[in-house]
Amino acid sequence: MPELRKDPVANRWVIISSERAQRPHAFVSPKIEKKISFCPFDYGNEHITPNEILAVRLAGTPKNTPNWTLRVVPNKFPALRIEGDLNREGEGVYDKMNGIGAHEVIIETPNHDETLANLEITKFKDVLWAYRERMVDLKKDIRFKYVLVFKNHGEQAGASLPHSHSQLIALPIVPKRVLEEIESCSRYYNFKERCLICDIVRQEIQQGVRVVAENKDYLAFCPFASRFPFEVWLLPKKHESCYEKINDAELEKLASIFKLVLQRLDVVLEEPPYNFVLHTAPFTEIHSAYYHWHFEIIPKLTKVAGFEWGSGFYINPTPPEESAKYLREI
Amino acid sequence: MPELRKDPVANRWVIISSERAQRPHAFVSPKIEKKISFCPFDYGNEHITPNEILAVRLAGTPKNTPNWTLRVVPNKFPALRIEGDLNREGEGVYDKMNGIGAHEVIIETPNHDETLANLEITKFKDVLWAYRERMVDLKKDIRFKYVLVFKNHGEQAGASLPHSHSQLIALPIVPKRVLEEIESCSRYYNFKERCLICDIVRQEIQQGVRVVAENKDYLAFCPFASRFPFEVWLLPKKHESCYEKINDAELEKLASIFKLVLQRLDVVLEEPPYNFVLHTAPFTEIHSAYYHWHFEIIPKLTKVAGFEWGSGFYINPTPPEESAKYLREI
Repeated sequence: MPELRKDPVANRWVIISSERAQRPHAFVSPKIEKKISFCPFDYGNEHITPNEILAVRLAGTPKNTPNWTLRVVPNKFPALRIEGDLNREGEGVYDKMNGIGAHEVIIETPNHDETLANLEITKFKDVLWAYRERMVDLKKDIRFKYVLVFKNHGEQAGASLPHSHSQLIALPIVPKRVLEEIESCSRYYNFKERCLICDIVRQEIQQGVRVVAENKDYLAFCPFASRFPFEVWLLPKKHESCYEKINDAELEKLASIFKLVLQRLDVVLEEPPYNFVLHTAPFTEIHSAYYHWHFEIIPKLTKVAGFEWGSGFYINPTPPEESAKYLREI
Repeated sequence: MPELRKDPVANRWVIISSERAQRPHAFVSPKIEKKISFCPFDYGNEHITPNEILAVRLAGTPKNTPNWTLRVVPNKFPALRIEGDLNREGEGVYDKMNGIGAHEVIIETPNHDETLANLEITKFKDVLWAYRERMVDLKKDIRFKYVLVFKNHGEQAGASLPHSHSQLIALPIVPKRVLEEIESCSRYYNFKERCLICDIVRQEIQQGVRVVAENKDYLAFCPFASRFPFEVWLLPKKHESCYEKINDAELEKLASIFKLVLQRLDVVLEEPPYNFVLHTAPFTEIHSAYYHWHFEIIPKLTKVAGFEWGSGFYINPTPPEESAKYLREI
């Protein structure tokens, strides 16, 4: 059973996945390039993945067969286990609980070489729809407090399979970064009676220099204090704390601007590896007046690593105004 | 002038170093391997670096000439500037100040291919001594609140020059991670009247399973909630908040265990790239009863990146008890 452990000094939970314990040789032996033609996410290999949870497929076709355009399946090597109790307990000064959670894979397309940026808008919309549907469903499990949706695109960004997919992890705790954002936003709201991120949206639209793209409902911009070159935030202009409240018309508008941002990153940075992560209100914060959901998109361009992890301190060599200019004017 | 900018949502300061603005092509053009034999840190090239601030050199030899075993020089491409005022100001909802600070390089050896792990103990001690001396000196500048000492070893860990060196950045703000640790430790102290990290030291010695090495004064262990495989903390057993209070006898004992830890990482992981960072009390916290300085050593083994940055959420495939066992038993 994997374990959730808390670092009392950094005040942060970590998954220790002891079942797939990596020995030193896993890190040092030269990685053998797996140029295997077999892909578990291709048509015809549906039986290789765990049982389909959700799919967009040709009417009347059975589960776990071809003729789908999107599938959601449990991760075959989950970081957390769905069965069991949390069993919260202490160990001296430390805290831990069982690694209970859900770990699912959203297979975004049946086409092995197609990228998210190149999906048709309607297919892109299906991906965003699947995030919503899975969140709504997982919210019913009272053991969970948060669903973390994320994507690793490209080997350098941590993708273990090249076939385009995103992931979600349902967690019994709220990730540290989300908790911190909620604290900042709540403090601001108590002081000003306004949502901090709504204020940011207004200022970014007014200043314009960091805007990458916008439509009637959504805004994409490079954050004022970007940690990384070409970091982009994508979010609704109208206040909304919970991503899962998004309606179908909004999904389509979000898909169209999301695709545009990814395409522009592809052009300006020549198809960079990237990550994105969705920050949304935890399940316990319904109708929050002070939190505002957003996607954070981070191209993986620089090598700096442990230093930033150790200090929380970032040096960004590209001002966000420059990054936004390239992405806006392409 | 570089700028310090604050992200109001994440509550984090970032250096935007606009002077060395990186255009997109810097990230996409295939990196040309610089197999240049010229190294600014070798003997005879002392005039290439900015003027020496501190050195261990043969008695009577002039500054900026050979015959040294350690040199501290300003970084030629500093992330922050030493001259000027902070000029703190707002920009709507955002905060910023001038990028004032010191950015120095500790050249650890004149031998181009020698690594820190392979330095003689007395030379290793000189490196740790130089950290102390520079901190004591920079503490006199009232603009600074913190000195961040760190090392990037190996290209994968962000080192831009292969010649062994560490760096320090004096900052007008305290890095987020240090601030968070101080908050946790202070809360714990207010509750228990004990230093949290002293309690951790006692528990780790008693449990033993995560201990990598120890001597009379220092302990090296893999943290209970390690974010990364083979992450190691190194710290004094006795309570001490400020690294710069370390005396010469302690420096020698610290050097000996620090060298041992790096050597063991080299053996177990076949000379991995790594980072380390020193967490110590900010200049404003003299004689803190609740904070406890420590080095965090992080081998760069895994590729995961933006996801962790975006969520603060880590999945560690190697339990620290396993990592410690390998490092202890080698």
